[in-house]
Amino acid sequence: MDTADIAEPRGSRGQRRERAGGRDGRRAGQGAQPLHHKAPYIIRNIPTYDIMGEESLLRIEDTADRILAEIGIEFRDDPVALEHWKSAGADVDGLLVRFEPGMLREILKSAPASFTQHARNPANNVEIGGKSVVFAPAYGSPFVMDLDKGRRYGTIEDFRNFIKLAQSSPWLHHSGGTICEPVDVPVNKRHLDMVYAHLKYSDRCFMGSVTAENRAEESIEMARIVFGRDFVDRNCVILGNVNVNSPLVWDGTMTHALRAYARANQAAVIVPFILGGAMGPVTNAGAIAQSLAETMAGCALTQLERKGAPVIFGNFLSSMSLRSGSPTFGTPEPAIGSMVIGQLARRLNLPLRCAGNFSNSKLPDAQAMNEGTMSMLSAVHCGANFILHSAGFLDGLLSMSYEKFVMDADFCGALHSYLAGVVVDDNTLALDAFREVGVGKHFLGCAHTMENYQTAFWDSAIADNEPFEKWDIAGRTDAASRANKRWKQTLADYEAPPMDEATDQALLEYMERTKAAQADAWY
Amino acid sequence: MDTADIAEPRGSRGQRRERAGGRDGRRAGQGAQPLHHKAPYIIRNIPTYDIMGEESLLRIEDTADRILAEIGIEFRDDPVALEHWKSAGADVDGLLVRFEPGMLREILKSAPASFTQHARNPANNVEIGGKSVVFAPAYGSPFVMDLDKGRRYGTIEDFRNFIKLAQSSPWLHHSGGTICEPVDVPVNKRHLDMVYAHLKYSDRCFMGSVTAENRAEESIEMARIVFGRDFVDRNCVILGNVNVNSPLVWDGTMTHALRAYARANQAAVIVPFILGGAMGPVTNAGAIAQSLAETMAGCALTQLERKGAPVIFGNFLSSMSLRSGSPTFGTPEPAIGSMVIGQLARRLNLPLRCAGNFSNSKLPDAQAMNEGTMSMLSAVHCGANFILHSAGFLDGLLSMSYEKFVMDADFCGALHSYLAGVVVDDNTLALDAFREVGVGKHFLGCAHTMENYQTAFWDSAIADNEPFEKWDIAGRTDAASRANKRWKQTLADYEAPPMDEATDQALLEYMERTKAAQADAWY
Repeated sequence: MDTADIAEPRGSRGQRRERAGGRDGRRAGQGAQPLHHKAPYIIRNIPTYDIMGEESLLRIEDTADRILAEIGIEFRDDPVALEHWKSAGADVDGLLVRFEPGMLREILKSAPASFTQHARNPANNVEIGGKSVVFAPAYGSPFVMDLDKGRRYGTIEDFRNFIKLAQSSPWLHHSGGTICEPVDVPVNKRHLDMVYAHLKYSDRCFMGSVTAENRAEESIEMARIVFGRDFVDRNCVILGNVNVNSPLVWDGTMTHALRAYARANQAAVIVPFILGGAMGPVTNAGAIAQSLAETMAGCALTQLERKGAPVIFGNFLSSMSLRSGSPTFGTPEPAIGSMVIGQLARRLNLPLRCAGNFSNSKLPDAQAMNEGTMSMLSAVHCGANFILHSAGFLDGLLSMSYEKFVMDADFCGALHSYLAGVVVDDNTLALDAFREVGVGKHFLGCAHTMENYQTAFWDSAIADNEPFEKWDIAGRTDAASRANKRWKQTLADYEAPPMDEATDQALLEYMERTKAAQADAWY
Repeated sequence: MDTADIAEPRGSRGQRRERAGGRDGRRAGQGAQPLHHKAPYIIRNIPTYDIMGEESLLRIEDTADRILAEIGIEFRDDPVALEHWKSAGADVDGLLVRFEPGMLREILKSAPASFTQHARNPANNVEIGGKSVVFAPAYGSPFVMDLDKGRRYGTIEDFRNFIKLAQSSPWLHHSGGTICEPVDVPVNKRHLDMVYAHLKYSDRCFMGSVTAENRAEESIEMARIVFGRDFVDRNCVILGNVNVNSPLVWDGTMTHALRAYARANQAAVIVPFILGGAMGPVTNAGAIAQSLAETMAGCALTQLERKGAPVIFGNFLSSMSLRSGSPTFGTPEPAIGSMVIGQLARRLNLPLRCAGNFSNSKLPDAQAMNEGTMSMLSAVHCGANFILHSAGFLDGLLSMSYEKFVMDADFCGALHSYLAGVVVDDNTLALDAFREVGVGKHFLGCAHTMENYQTAFWDSAIADNEPFEKWDIAGRTDAASRANKRWKQTLADYEAPPMDEATDQALLEYMERTKAAQADAWY
């Protein structure tokens, strides 16, 4: 397929900005649009929440530099990565690599501060970097759960369901990656089914496999079938999320995948997962310094593989219950620590992935949304551009919850209004309305209210805002049961976005051929 | 009772600061203390979240000035208030008062930027202003609800129960005011029972009645019995929360109460409750400008009644469902608007009350904690010093929920850790720990972890952080059912703080005498 088949995004960047600008974007919409119409992504209209002063930031950066120079990072099972480091001038001693202060920052200058990820429907392209905010579903749970059937292993049917739910939500912007593990498909082949499902059931941006170099490459190859080989070489169309094996170890599986994405000019997301007290220090400042060191090394490696390749500075701080040793999620220390991560990423001029809608609850209950909301707000406050785990995360990421997915997606909608900030202009200041209404009267029917009410307030599809008596008569539902009803209705109403028959056939043939070339493996 | 009987707060302000400083404060505690020991209030260690630039702030202030100068505010049923305004040079035309731009700001210069509210136990004194954050229970619900008995009218027994629950929580700092309406006590006498209950069952700071001038004065008189007349004349020991009748009307009931508190050198909290689209414009900027105008007028009136009296700049932005006309709570527009309110209050150099743990849910469910958490975080981010409605608020403030009270108080605990920010020093940067652990090992038993783990992470009493299997075996509880168990246990374990017998008798005699002087009224 030729790149000529691929339409460029409609309109200029400037037009997209206007369209995506939260409330302003909505106001610019047609009268016939739903009250809050979909934007392909958010352009934040509020500043980031910068909590740390220059001196402390410098101390954290200095500590990261000293970790890199004095302790170093081990790169296992990847001789090419070690060769890259040698060529770049790092001190390579066996598997251990040490870095002069400033070296990684210098290498990182070639990485773009912002880039476009292209979707097969160009209207759904997302910008990742700067003031953009992109919401993607949770990633990586082996289990799924819902109120009817409880918790069980995820299947390819669940996987497709979540793609359909994400595609149906106006408030998510991205189809995500391994939304749940489809354990009914062989381990060595499921990446093909997952990528196909993203391409088939969604027309938004998505993520590929990272669990082996060939799986990363095959994920990218499927993207090439859809977008065209040349287009993919020049543009980002797929992301790969790679994890550091903290503390201070990069495993070969991950660096092979990282390099595969970079080599193809696709964006790797570089993510240390640091459970404070286990994979890093129990104190936030030290865990943040470690995270900075590990992420800088991973991001820099993408630039050594292919200078100028897009890359995302990722982060996943977490805490643990020091009574039981269990990991905890959606807790205050990682939430406030994320603000500092945001500041550090911006000082490197890199796009940021940070935080998400985390919870350790085993139900879509009050705990789930207390932890999730605190954590998700930290993501948007810290300036994260790509927010993985925006919807569905429960059970410490072991389970993808259908009900929480729907509640979280609804909250993502609320965040569109939140990130629009407080617009100040003659219309919003409403001095004429005060003159019209005067003292002691109500604004319900005044001209200003009539002109503005359709876009004034977020309108949740999950919250019950009826008076108690009406709620009582209507069956005394809780949020989880309303979400249960909603995901079923959404799946029933789902319509697949159109896909060109030849493209579909080409994808299916590639899958079949690739699967046939190897025996099933289940571990 | 003489003021000599009243102990001054232990230690200097400087010592209190250290003790109250969140995680640092905890670290300074004894080894035998619980992991997260109680602080009398929080000194925030993170900056406020200032989202609006100077130009927009000036436009909002200018709009408030024009509302005050061109439209004005009506002061009903309070000739003394009108006299005050005349003397101050305002343009008084019947009940309508108009203010020259700058006039109210000038008057407000005499109000303190920060003040101490004294508790009968001086260890529980709170500072209101500057970097302090004080959590108080929700205020004003006619109904109460719990999982066992559902929703019903509040009684004096419920009222006492909530005081006991607040007093038992290490994470609330203040006993609040009308936690719920005790509808089994006559309307004209219940303020006496409420103030007595706060004084008897709590030894923290509290609030008095505002529903009539004599009730405000009798509330203050009871405080005088406990603290001594001279002490009360020199120090704030009771707060009164007065509401504007928005838009742009101050009712006499409220200004009489406001003046009673100011006259006694006690702090009035001046709160417009603006439901956007009803009591104010449907757009945030206009509602904020109106709120600023109304609050400045109320705060200034306290200074005309008694120059230098403490006063709190209050605010309660809200939104409405434009499908049903119902008020909504915990929604994004008031949350982000609160940040601007915070900036405006600081420009006036006044202590701030703003936001709280709001929700419109009728159950302690996912909706309750999604809305509550967003709203409560806006309170701490905007720099509110006194956060009324920190715990228990459900059903659009019509119901006080036992379970949500417990969950909210637990979240207030998490906010102690959150507001401690990210401390950067040699210990927290943990470079020695990296040297000890090296690459690829875990930090679980290293010296740094052992030295820091007890204070490292917030430890929720409500969240279930066990693995799924253990949670399953333990009975698959949700957060609400755990909270249900916890409030019952807390009430069973409650012990009243000691009260001097003579003081108790004096209070009871005053109550009896005051009640006997008038017939019961039930409306």
